[in-house]
Amino acid sequence: MVYHTMTDQIIEELRKIVGRGNVITDGEKLDAYSHDETDAREFGHRPDVVVLPASTEETAAVVQLANRELIPVTPRGAGSGLSGGAIPEYGGIVVSLEKMNRLIEVDRENMLAVAEAGMVTNDFAKAVEEQGLFFAGYPMSLQTCVIGGNIAENAGGGKAVKYGVTGRYILGLTLVTPTGEIVELGGKLAKDVTGYDLKSLVIGSEGTLGIVTKAIIRLIGYPSSKSDLLALFKTPKDAIDLVPEILCRGVTPTSIEFMDKLSVQTSCKYLNESLPYEDCGAMLLIELDGSDPVQVESDLIETGKLCESRGALEVYVAEDRNNIERIWNVRRNIAEAFKVFSPTQSLEDIVVPISRIPDIIPELERLGKKYGMQIPCYGHAGDGNLHATLVKDPEMNMDEWKKNEWACQKELYEITKAAGGKISGEHGIGIKRREFFKELVNPGELELMKALKRAWDPNNIMNPGKIFN
Amino acid sequence: MVYHTMTDQIIEELRKIVGRGNVITDGEKLDAYSHDETDAREFGHRPDVVVLPASTEETAAVVQLANRELIPVTPRGAGSGLSGGAIPEYGGIVVSLEKMNRLIEVDRENMLAVAEAGMVTNDFAKAVEEQGLFFAGYPMSLQTCVIGGNIAENAGGGKAVKYGVTGRYILGLTLVTPTGEIVELGGKLAKDVTGYDLKSLVIGSEGTLGIVTKAIIRLIGYPSSKSDLLALFKTPKDAIDLVPEILCRGVTPTSIEFMDKLSVQTSCKYLNESLPYEDCGAMLLIELDGSDPVQVESDLIETGKLCESRGALEVYVAEDRNNIERIWNVRRNIAEAFKVFSPTQSLEDIVVPISRIPDIIPELERLGKKYGMQIPCYGHAGDGNLHATLVKDPEMNMDEWKKNEWACQKELYEITKAAGGKISGEHGIGIKRREFFKELVNPGELELMKALKRAWDPNNIMNPGKIFN
Repeated sequence: MVYHTMTDQIIEELRKIVGRGNVITDGEKLDAYSHDETDAREFGHRPDVVVLPASTEETAAVVQLANRELIPVTPRGAGSGLSGGAIPEYGGIVVSLEKMNRLIEVDRENMLAVAEAGMVTNDFAKAVEEQGLFFAGYPMSLQTCVIGGNIAENAGGGKAVKYGVTGRYILGLTLVTPTGEIVELGGKLAKDVTGYDLKSLVIGSEGTLGIVTKAIIRLIGYPSSKSDLLALFKTPKDAIDLVPEILCRGVTPTSIEFMDKLSVQTSCKYLNESLPYEDCGAMLLIELDGSDPVQVESDLIETGKLCESRGALEVYVAEDRNNIERIWNVRRNIAEAFKVFSPTQSLEDIVVPISRIPDIIPELERLGKKYGMQIPCYGHAGDGNLHATLVKDPEMNMDEWKKNEWACQKELYEITKAAGGKISGEHGIGIKRREFFKELVNPGELELMKALKRAWDPNNIMNPGKIFN
Repeated sequence: MVYHTMTDQIIEELRKIVGRGNVITDGEKLDAYSHDETDAREFGHRPDVVVLPASTEETAAVVQLANRELIPVTPRGAGSGLSGGAIPEYGGIVVSLEKMNRLIEVDRENMLAVAEAGMVTNDFAKAVEEQGLFFAGYPMSLQTCVIGGNIAENAGGGKAVKYGVTGRYILGLTLVTPTGEIVELGGKLAKDVTGYDLKSLVIGSEGTLGIVTKAIIRLIGYPSSKSDLLALFKTPKDAIDLVPEILCRGVTPTSIEFMDKLSVQTSCKYLNESLPYEDCGAMLLIELDGSDPVQVESDLIETGKLCESRGALEVYVAEDRNNIERIWNVRRNIAEAFKVFSPTQSLEDIVVPISRIPDIIPELERLGKKYGMQIPCYGHAGDGNLHATLVKDPEMNMDEWKKNEWACQKELYEITKAAGGKISGEHGIGIKRREFFKELVNPGELELMKALKRAWDPNNIMNPGKIFN
């Protein structure tokens, strides 16, 4: 696909659509829109222009113009993505949703809220919490990420074991299609089989099938009771081996988070935090919630006993909210900490059947040795979703690292596939995993995706370069 | 689209693929495959041939042949659909999944099972229940329907208020595409953003995007405690008005089923059953479940008190499983009972936001008067999904009935749309609602559906005539 070059005339037209102050063409300011949370040196690319529409109609007008002029369009939420989805690899227009950040409505009677795509997820979660309602589909990065990005990536999160991922909570959305049409998909409905489920198709399509500008989000009652448990283990394998067993007993925890020693230590260093159990080989952080505190407590105690009987070194039932918040904070900041202390790295996002996660840990150790790198691991063990992180040894030269990184990723992904897994559980394919994806996906399935993309976006202007194209 | 005519040579090729005994060409036997549970006189159409493949590979070979020869293919599960989805409107080949009815695997460790699409849903539910596992996504007609049909329609069901519909439980599926490719979508995974979510797109696409031959189905722990409540009301409005209020309190019932007097009486007559409260104007049948019997009981009592304080005539907390099973049986058989006693009728399936269901009941009464028909109503009130049933007055002549039925449906659907609702919550569009769907859907959304269908099924051989084409 050959795109046209940006012209002053197109920029003038964009100014007419969104207003002069909402068009960015200044080089330095453009840089802020040239990357996401993947390595900017490797994946970054500067857009020709950034527009900040204030409405769905403005967004549609921008896309119509881009489609007519054959200019690539890259939708952008918070830019906190981890696979390069918001990077304008082919230049052109970045459509940043940052000004569309309003909470439009909290509809208590229907247990839902309507928000614009640029609303920070945490702001949304807090606003509905004030009304006793709970948005259960939020990801770990909720302080920075926005609703539209969560939808584009079908983000997972800390509570997905029990509550599922973002997509389960999206009842409807407003989409600007790649040709600039506005369509409303879904609605304030508990169920709906009126035609194809295009809403679910758009969720997780990484901005390649249009720009989501607004969403109807299902809420649930705020769980009145919550309790956490921290179990320490000698080795990562000891911890992970237990996960399928915890999940099989009929009680579904809200989360089962796994962290190995290096992940914990790195995050503690980053936070200037000190935990008494930083030296243990691995830990599981388990949360339960429910409406009955007695039941939650007894489930937690049962879970703790199971951990003890299976070789946990220590089990802490955290009665003190402060203490448990410190541990969660350590968990939430691991990715950021590795970025700071080991900027040359690759954060992985593999997902495997729960029963197969114990097979993965020894493979990570083997791969680390084989390729001369450390591979700390943490993640949503209760979902089978592990954030192994390939970290460059400072001694290794950059060329060798790039070669080894690629080979190690490839081998890890093949192991994952052989275990019945996939290469991304919540971060998406984006640019980062594109070549691997194309190699590993079933050709028939890939052809269905391509056909669909061509049918909706004949000029391939909508977020080109992502996933498979 | 002009299809080719069936020839002896094609039938001979089909015999080679599935075996001579699995090809039906005999007229009377074909009749059994010419209709579903919609009115056979109105919607029925005989296929040229029925094939009964024994495997995904055989199914794929049949579809390849059909695609090459431009012969329409209609996939068929149990034929228990309520919108004509399994009717071969353009003749050609019916692919019946009835021989692909095996339970392939129960995988306790991953809390899932794998079944072929032709397996009767009840057989599946029973088989996993024997292992203490629960398939929460099943519909009301589970005794007859099959897994593949549940997926094709994204069936709802009695427990959808709490547990959601079929689609939430489908982790993966094997699809034979309209060109006869075999693709595996999804997997044994709790989350997955590796490329487009084609699995969710196929769910609910009514067999127009391919033939599902196998599914990976998520199971949950069997809820150890369950309790039911029956509340009687003077009028349908009294009962329905209460539904949003019940749902707002933070306790989510498994189901809130609504039945008006005529629905109950007709089903009782059909079952030769007699209930002491047959004469009340309407009833709500509410079920709660959970792991803690004390909690379930106390939630039930609270719900009962709420009903009483809002004008329920009587509230029965059913402690006796036999008694409650009788009432559920009445609920489950309403559709069948109307078919027997009022064969000329139209079973509707509208779905509206929970807060708007109280607005619908008076409209049904008004429409009944306006068009000279009775419109009994029952359904999954807790989902906003109401099965209003337009019943022909025996006095009305057939021409007038057809005219009034159409006009009444049209008006009902417009009312539904104005209330933020859709014309089908769980039965699908099929043939029955096709013309209304095309009229009511947003043109931009319709164009996305059509583009997608053309992209995947360029010869339009896969279940033509359904939904929009």
